[in-house]
Amino acid sequence: MIVVMEPDATQEQIEAAARKVGELGLRANVIVGTERTVIAVVGEERQHAKELLEVSDGVATVMPILAPYKMASREVRSEPTTVTCGSFSAGCSQIGVIAGPCSVESEDQIIASARAVKAAGATAVRGGAFKPRTSPYSFQGLKEDGLKMLATARQETGLAVVTEVVSTEDVELVAKYSDVLQIGARNMQNYRLLEAVGGVDRAVLLKRGPSATMDEFLLAAEYILNEGNHRVMLCERGIRTFEAHTRFTLPLASVPYLHRKTHLPVIVDPSHGTGHTYLVPDMAAAAVASGADGLIIEVHPDPKNAASDGYQSLDFEGFAQTMDKCRRVAAALDRTLGAPPA
Amino acid sequence: MIVVMEPDATQEQIEAAARKVGELGLRANVIVGTERTVIAVVGEERQHAKELLEVSDGVATVMPILAPYKMASREVRSEPTTVTCGSFSAGCSQIGVIAGPCSVESEDQIIASARAVKAAGATAVRGGAFKPRTSPYSFQGLKEDGLKMLATARQETGLAVVTEVVSTEDVELVAKYSDVLQIGARNMQNYRLLEAVGGVDRAVLLKRGPSATMDEFLLAAEYILNEGNHRVMLCERGIRTFEAHTRFTLPLASVPYLHRKTHLPVIVDPSHGTGHTYLVPDMAAAAVASGADGLIIEVHPDPKNAASDGYQSLDFEGFAQTMDKCRRVAAALDRTLGAPPA
Amino acid sequence: MIVVMEPDATQEQIEAAARKVGELGLRANVIVGTERTVIAVVGEERQHAKELLEVSDGVATVMPILAPYKMASREVRSEPTTVTCGSFSAGCSQIGVIAGPCSVESEDQIIASARAVKAAGATAVRGGAFKPRTSPYSFQGLKEDGLKMLATARQETGLAVVTEVVSTEDVELVAKYSDVLQIGARNMQNYRLLEAVGGVDRAVLLKRGPSATMDEFLLAAEYILNEGNHRVMLCERGIRTFEAHTRFTLPLASVPYLHRKTHLPVIVDPSHGTGHTYLVPDMAAAAVASGADGLIIEVHPDPKNAASDGYQSLDFEGFAQTMDKCRRVAAALDRTLGAPPA
Amino acid sequence: MIVVMEPDATQEQIEAAARKVGELGLRANVIVGTERTVIAVVGEERQHAKELLEVSDGVATVMPILAPYKMASREVRSEPTTVTCGSFSAGCSQIGVIAGPCSVESEDQIIASARAVKAAGATAVRGGAFKPRTSPYSFQGLKEDGLKMLATARQETGLAVVTEVVSTEDVELVAKYSDVLQIGARNMQNYRLLEAVGGVDRAVLLKRGPSATMDEFLLAAEYILNEGNHRVMLCERGIRTFEAHTRFTLPLASVPYLHRKTHLPVIVDPSHGTGHTYLVPDMAAAAVASGADGLIIEVHPDPKNAASDGYQSLDFEGFAQTMDKCRRVAAALDRTLGAPPA
Repeated sequence: MIVVMEPDATQEQIEAAARKVGELGLRANVIVGTERTVIAVVGEERQHAKELLEVSDGVATVMPILAPYKMASREVRSEPTTVTCGSFSAGCSQIGVIAGPCSVESEDQIIASARAVKAAGATAVRGGAFKPRTSPYSFQGLKEDGLKMLATARQETGLAVVTEVVSTEDVELVAKYSDVLQIGARNMQNYRLLEAVGGVDRAVLLKRGPSATMDEFLLAAEYILNEGNHRVMLCERGIRTFEAHTRFTLPLASVPYLHRKTHLPVIVDPSHGTGHTYLVPDMAAAAVASGADGLIIEVHPDPKNAASDGYQSLDFEGFAQTMDKCRRVAAALDRTLGAPPA
Repeated sequence: MIVVMEPDATQEQIEAAARKVGELGLRANVIVGTERTVIAVVGEERQHAKELLEVSDGVATVMPILAPYKMASREVRSEPTTVTCGSFSAGCSQIGVIAGPCSVESEDQIIASARAVKAAGATAVRGGAFKPRTSPYSFQGLKEDGLKMLATARQETGLAVVTEVVSTEDVELVAKYSDVLQIGARNMQNYRLLEAVGGVDRAVLLKRGPSATMDEFLLAAEYILNEGNHRVMLCERGIRTFEAHTRFTLPLASVPYLHRKTHLPVIVDPSHGTGHTYLVPDMAAAAVASGADGLIIEVHPDPKNAASDGYQSLDFEGFAQTMDKCRRVAAALDRTLGAPPA
Repeated sequence: MIVVMEPDATQEQIEAAARKVGELGLRANVIVGTERTVIAVVGEERQHAKELLEVSDGVATVMPILAPYKMASREVRSEPTTVTCGSFSAGCSQIGVIAGPCSVESEDQIIASARAVKAAGATAVRGGAFKPRTSPYSFQGLKEDGLKMLATARQETGLAVVTEVVSTEDVELVAKYSDVLQIGARNMQNYRLLEAVGGVDRAVLLKRGPSATMDEFLLAAEYILNEGNHRVMLCERGIRTFEAHTRFTLPLASVPYLHRKTHLPVIVDPSHGTGHTYLVPDMAAAAVASGADGLIIEVHPDPKNAASDGYQSLDFEGFAQTMDKCRRVAAALDRTLGAPPA
Repeated sequence: MIVVMEPDATQEQIEAAARKVGELGLRANVIVGTERTVIAVVGEERQHAKELLEVSDGVATVMPILAPYKMASREVRSEPTTVTCGSFSAGCSQIGVIAGPCSVESEDQIIASARAVKAAGATAVRGGAFKPRTSPYSFQGLKEDGLKMLATARQETGLAVVTEVVSTEDVELVAKYSDVLQIGARNMQNYRLLEAVGGVDRAVLLKRGPSATMDEFLLAAEYILNEGNHRVMLCERGIRTFEAHTRFTLPLASVPYLHRKTHLPVIVDPSHGTGHTYLVPDMAAAAVASGADGLIIEVHPDPKNAASDGYQSLDFEGFAQTMDKCRRVAAALDRTLGAPPA
């Protein structure tokens, strides 16, 4: 931590700031510059140290040096973490592929989807039973009925089930029927929910909030890790920017950045990340080339009649072609994409 | 709703899209242009109409015309709504002022704060008992003990109490001790929580999420209104942009924009909206000049030793001066700011 | 400047980085922390020092401490600069008001506009003769004819003339007819143009680029100051964010922020900053309350038939009402707005 | 164009708006809806039609349907354009690769760079002779001396030369020594400069401004095309967002989006687009996978001692490895990357 004093800070103010550093159990190195003085702070930093120093008289700014997250950090664990749940793995040379409809609409729909995505090489099936919708007037999901249909789809195909949980009350129920609990982008900073999924024996797919910084994203993961659940996967699904020709802006540089900062696997969602079916295949391939550990893609038997997200869903044929493209890119980079196609 | 066809859409595609409009119970007006055809859609739109049309063959885009929110809309209620709870009102010629510390730290702290802000003219006291913090290692609040201290502060001063609720499980408890339930920016799209506060007899202060569009903000309010709770106040607290010299960017044009679109009162938070104590007084005055119905300001007896947000809190004297400044601006615009100072 | 080493930096790397600091003529203070080492750098920094250190082996990041601009800085000149040109002043207790049409369309139009805005209390007239337009197919301005009309308007009213210059070739010509040269937002980083206006005896109104940081904005001003022209005014006109309900997002916190960092006057443009006529009056008043030294507002005799920007222009009556509102806010804060109205 | 009336628009206002449509030489289709009336406008739209209708009484908004650019549009030319200049091509199955230092620093440096990038398979060499720098105190380039060194490098290697032009005065000079004129991101809306490069017989590499929308980007290209120069290449180099861990956010979905909207080739700049050397290889590979027609990459013999941009430059070995990676991805997608390596 570096405490930067104002150019006109008095000797008293500098001494007071240095004293405060001492009171926090840290060591102050006062460095007198030609234009201003800085205090380099050494020691194990307490939580509030930065905030407390920031408001001292004569202090211009306090610059943290250490990352605020710990258990998610590469500094704590240098090897990548592989998260495995049944048919699905991410964080190794095999790229995990989660595919399926935005919402579970019927048993036929989810079973057909699971079979089709499995045939194309996916290693997990997704489908929403509890849907967080922007409008209270939109379809809100089939709830427990939807979860049961997902479980049936797993039984039929052997694919791991990924589904979203939106409330602490539902965690136990959703965990009963699924293999991976998805935390949606809107809930990335719903800390109670993070703590709740940190307490169950299920892998977690944590989606980045559309305005979350990388530190905020990793601190959200830290909430889950801190409860003892180490099977956390990070999902880049696009951020909100001034761009309007895509639904969100998908910043693939997140993938190599996160690989440098954290040992957790990084999944990319090109469906939400673009918001348009025709952009999904190229961005899925680009995600693989950027080094992603997994993909999550919306696939629907009949996107034109989907209950939600039809405009960004692939149909079965489009998904098979996308998988073929991504498989070639993965192979060129000495990786494998999902399971071999049927 | 306007369905815009691709320039090379075939006659069959145009007819299929028009037929789909009819199947949705709407009327299609096909307009053949020099470069492309559009279909103007008339009638009471169902929820999925836009999404279903968007994925028809040959359709380039679908442009909605109506606002997606209804009960929050000026079109439903043209007069402004005044929200009143005890000492506090917003939405009328008197500008409501909510002030107090970020976190409740002790009974002494919150009572001293309540007395000081009341003396300066505030009409409600704020203080966090349940704190949603970015890091799991930060101070998380005094919980029910903090709520009790807030209730004591109300008893001592007569000020209405505003405090945040972060989880559905806590709604009843927080409602027991407070007058206004605050939904924080991180929870703006925590729909279960919105529904829960929509079901209790307490006013709600709904903070805008840092990347929420105005439509998303008003749809979040709609979730609460839709449960029967009509005492909803909107709070602009800053958005996330590329600017780094402020913590968030405070877009005051939200105030006149929202006044045109909705009948709900609009409160401005210049503390979170700037993130720096020295910017708060000018931005509070600017908020009043922009037409805000209320202010919410962080005030602490000793910002240098605050448990949270000290860097953006005013001390008692700073708050009294800010109130004086805002009071003069309000008077110049024929409004009054809070209660008369002691 | 603080050089932060990687946690696993070797002793050799630390020594090499410290040596490099010495080679740059600076003094290195190596501070060994519990988790990593930092080097505090003291001395008069050369231009490339940061970049050169950043790429040394084992260096994680280099954090600058000093602002990169000098002549624009409060540290160089602590008193505010007042810019005066004829009828117009900014940077003192009187708030300067520049008003007029987006484009000069005819002599009648600009003279009528100049008279009307003067009657309402404006202290300068604006009008574009060289128009930078997003589309090559849009109206590009009357060029020298337009400049002559502006000069006539000045003769008729005594108001100083503010007009945009878009190319180095035109600087001399535009300077001949005008009092203040405006650099548009799109040209904020057109450094040749900045240097050119830095070399003439005319005040400059420098508009912030829609994605410029404050440091970039002040460095652009520095280009002009560095050529010897000290009459530079900064203009906040809105930034590009995800918000789509306004044309740009107008961040008024720029005003008090800039007042702390620079001695140059700060003007606000609520017309471009919102993009909608109905938002201009409230945001003009808010700009005054935030402490702005001046306003620049688009006013047109007949916005419905304007050649450009009609959707964000006030008509004469709307401008007179806006001035009245702003005048009251200014008075409440012990300032005066423009000249007394006729 | 669709004119949407306010819900409370009067019959007179609707008729007046429809009449105005007729006066503009267009045909009005008035469609009376259940909640409001819209007017669908048919015909060849004049430039100001939208703006003029927007300010009619009772009009809520006007929604354009056609893209504002014409010559850049796929609707005008459905086949992709291949731009060729000597050794370099983009827009065909071969992916063009431009590489070299940010600034030309010496003849040795640029010749060594040209040789190294050619050996690795690049098809053009880049190097800045006129440098637009954020700070007036930064290195501004070697100017004509630098251009001569570039020409020597071309002579030595046969590689086409790409270099930036920052001012209309320099266009002729820069064109004399180079094959491709680069318009930097800061100058994307410097329309005089666009017109100037539109008038010379040199290909143009147009970089996207960091806050430019796609329509603005394509309209900037339109300025060049409109002057008769059809060899225009678009370069995505990252946008400004709230993200601070990368210098800019590189939105690769621009590539497939632009391929759908325009026939012009799309080049990606992963160096500026990330701002960190270690992110460049993965993002270059991702750009190829997304379908880019070319890459432009900063390469320096000794990034640690570069005069500019060392922090985002690859050294020769890093570039050769990046090329190898990209070549494999290109081959997997049935394309070739640059020339065969030496």
